[in-house]
Amino acid sequence: MAFSELVSRLKSSLIREILAAAQRPEVMSFAGGLPAEVMLPPVQWQDMPLSMGQYGMSEGEPQLREALAEQARQLGVPCSASQVLVVSGSQQTLDLAAKLFIDPGTEVLLEAPTYLAALQIFQLFGAACLSVPLEADGPDLTRLRARLEQHRPAFIYLIPTFQNPSAVRYSEARRDAVASLLDEFGVTLIEDEPYRELSFDGGSATPIVSRLQKASWIYTGTVSKTLLPGLRVGYLIASQDLFPHLLRLKQSADLHTNRVGQWQAMQWIGTTQYQQHLHELRGFYRQRRDAFQAALETHFSDLAQWQVPQGGLFFWLSLKQPLDTRTLLDSALAQDVTFMPGEPFFSEPERNLGHLRLNFSHIDPARLDEGLKRLATVIRQAQAAQAA
Amino acid sequence: MAFSELVSRLKSSLIREILAAAQRPEVMSFAGGLPAEVMLPPVQWQDMPLSMGQYGMSEGEPQLREALAEQARQLGVPCSASQVLVVSGSQQTLDLAAKLFIDPGTEVLLEAPTYLAALQIFQLFGAACLSVPLEADGPDLTRLRARLEQHRPAFIYLIPTFQNPSAVRYSEARRDAVASLLDEFGVTLIEDEPYRELSFDGGSATPIVSRLQKASWIYTGTVSKTLLPGLRVGYLIASQDLFPHLLRLKQSADLHTNRVGQWQAMQWIGTTQYQQHLHELRGFYRQRRDAFQAALETHFSDLAQWQVPQGGLFFWLSLKQPLDTRTLLDSALAQDVTFMPGEPFFSEPERNLGHLRLNFSHIDPARLDEGLKRLATVIRQAQAAQAA
Repeated sequence: MAFSELVSRLKSSLIREILAAAQRPEVMSFAGGLPAEVMLPPVQWQDMPLSMGQYGMSEGEPQLREALAEQARQLGVPCSASQVLVVSGSQQTLDLAAKLFIDPGTEVLLEAPTYLAALQIFQLFGAACLSVPLEADGPDLTRLRARLEQHRPAFIYLIPTFQNPSAVRYSEARRDAVASLLDEFGVTLIEDEPYRELSFDGGSATPIVSRLQKASWIYTGTVSKTLLPGLRVGYLIASQDLFPHLLRLKQSADLHTNRVGQWQAMQWIGTTQYQQHLHELRGFYRQRRDAFQAALETHFSDLAQWQVPQGGLFFWLSLKQPLDTRTLLDSALAQDVTFMPGEPFFSEPERNLGHLRLNFSHIDPARLDEGLKRLATVIRQAQAAQAA
Repeated sequence: MAFSELVSRLKSSLIREILAAAQRPEVMSFAGGLPAEVMLPPVQWQDMPLSMGQYGMSEGEPQLREALAEQARQLGVPCSASQVLVVSGSQQTLDLAAKLFIDPGTEVLLEAPTYLAALQIFQLFGAACLSVPLEADGPDLTRLRARLEQHRPAFIYLIPTFQNPSAVRYSEARRDAVASLLDEFGVTLIEDEPYRELSFDGGSATPIVSRLQKASWIYTGTVSKTLLPGLRVGYLIASQDLFPHLLRLKQSADLHTNRVGQWQAMQWIGTTQYQQHLHELRGFYRQRRDAFQAALETHFSDLAQWQVPQGGLFFWLSLKQPLDTRTLLDSALAQDVTFMPGEPFFSEPERNLGHLRLNFSHIDPARLDEGLKRLATVIRQAQAAQAA
């Protein structure tokens, strides 16, 4: 059987295996990024016109595109509805962007750490993934400039607001500085913002794409973290030079995004009902975040360092005594606990040992303390074994 | 801006332009492949559990996979639910198959004519598209054997039941002969069957994949032609050697298919309600087919030859005096009529002039006669001008 070169880069997915293990009901999982089930809003369908069952436009539903453009303009993103493409979850934006930019060997620039599934799909298309380290309030600017001076990446992929996995939120100053560097070097920005609305402590800097003067850009979001992931409705907004290509790639990928999900999203985006739901969601996750922080302080203060996330769905822990956290998975699962090792979030995993991504949104609060306690024990035992 | 090599193969889509033109309400369109709106079945949503809003499995909903496997087994396809992958419309099967098999220059084998969007996406990934001519009851077997002796295509892509665009249905004998050749040469079969259930005159040969002894295969279908295309729910069933790769490619493309559409499809597949709906659909389209045939005889009997389609959504006309039918589009549109030129359905359009694909399912019956009359006039005028 002769497969494509692409398939030779298809790795067995650690995430798939971890999430499969997390399906067992007795497992306390800190691994996924799932919304809490109790916060999935009740939705109604009875008013949906039957015409939503017919084929639709590749661009997406006109009314939804208008609402998404309006929402983006309110964030300062200069755009019209004609630049909005509704996609089958924001994962599809990564697929379309990979097709648009990446040939085997194409250099792309990412944060370290970065979103695992982005790294995987860019590598699947054969990209050479360069990285720039993240600091507490954004990327290391000296290293970023050096990268741009020495390379010509096809794009830079950033998650500036409550990054997955690190929870970092770029400061105003870093956003301005990044925009200015991308303009200076003419590098396209892909800005991924699934977590923007999940902000727990107020404050919200405008997207970096709104600060660009010249560089091309793709801004991408989703309703998966705020409404219903099962709808598979995400969107991208692109500068005019990129949009027509992305539209054709979308058409060839799956003709158009399902209209049933688009119709449901249309009932929410831009409404006061949605604002109210977001308000409740923030309050709910803030409580979960605070409870998680308290439990972490009890069980992990001697083991790891972390920043309290101001938004998003994750804590990012850095072990004081680093070890390869992938090696902890089996013993954690033996204790009915799972988590996401930090190494796969880096393009050079072996050089970035000792981080853990812990999801705080989905765990049953009654099992939180026990779960973290068991995980801490697994780590202590591994460190003791390593020291011995 | 440095785009990928793939983007350099992205053509402006004639289909998009034609379908855009067909949006004007005054246009009588024979161009698309849309189900008739009056035959979209009324659906209910009130029993859908809210849990369908959560993230789902990349494979698809377990209950739907079971139902699709059972349906396929009844057609003779040897499979279990573990070989079923629910996809975002069967267009996505083509995207996943292209990723699995095609590097620039990879040879693939197609019918001539073949499904336009398949040809486009295989070419987009850089395939060298070889073809084998279709006869009234299947591919030319001598030419097929010659192709297989001289080339090693990564796969052959066939639509054996009411093919788009030609409406050809392979006979039992051709199905057996094709299966036997593919086993002999070890060539993977992708068998695309969106139209299988739209059979107007009874009779239904089993799929070719059910006749294979050794060759690998992907069988693909959809609910778009029988239920609601707006759900974007299709499926593929693959031999065990291919399935794991397709699953991972699906995950990287869009995580999973929307669960709302999957839930709705689950309410139908395998039920007597669905059988009843299919029965009504066949009767409705049979009437439209017959009316179309009568109008064609009135206006086209001196102009073209065609077979009466026994299923599917299209008539395929071959002009007695061939000309490049793409050149007719502007004058047809000036008369508020549109259709699909035949040339783009061939990998070598310039060597296959003079066919038209006419959709009979979506046109308003009250405008059918006038539409075909205007189209015939446009053709006559072009032929007269050519002769002059």
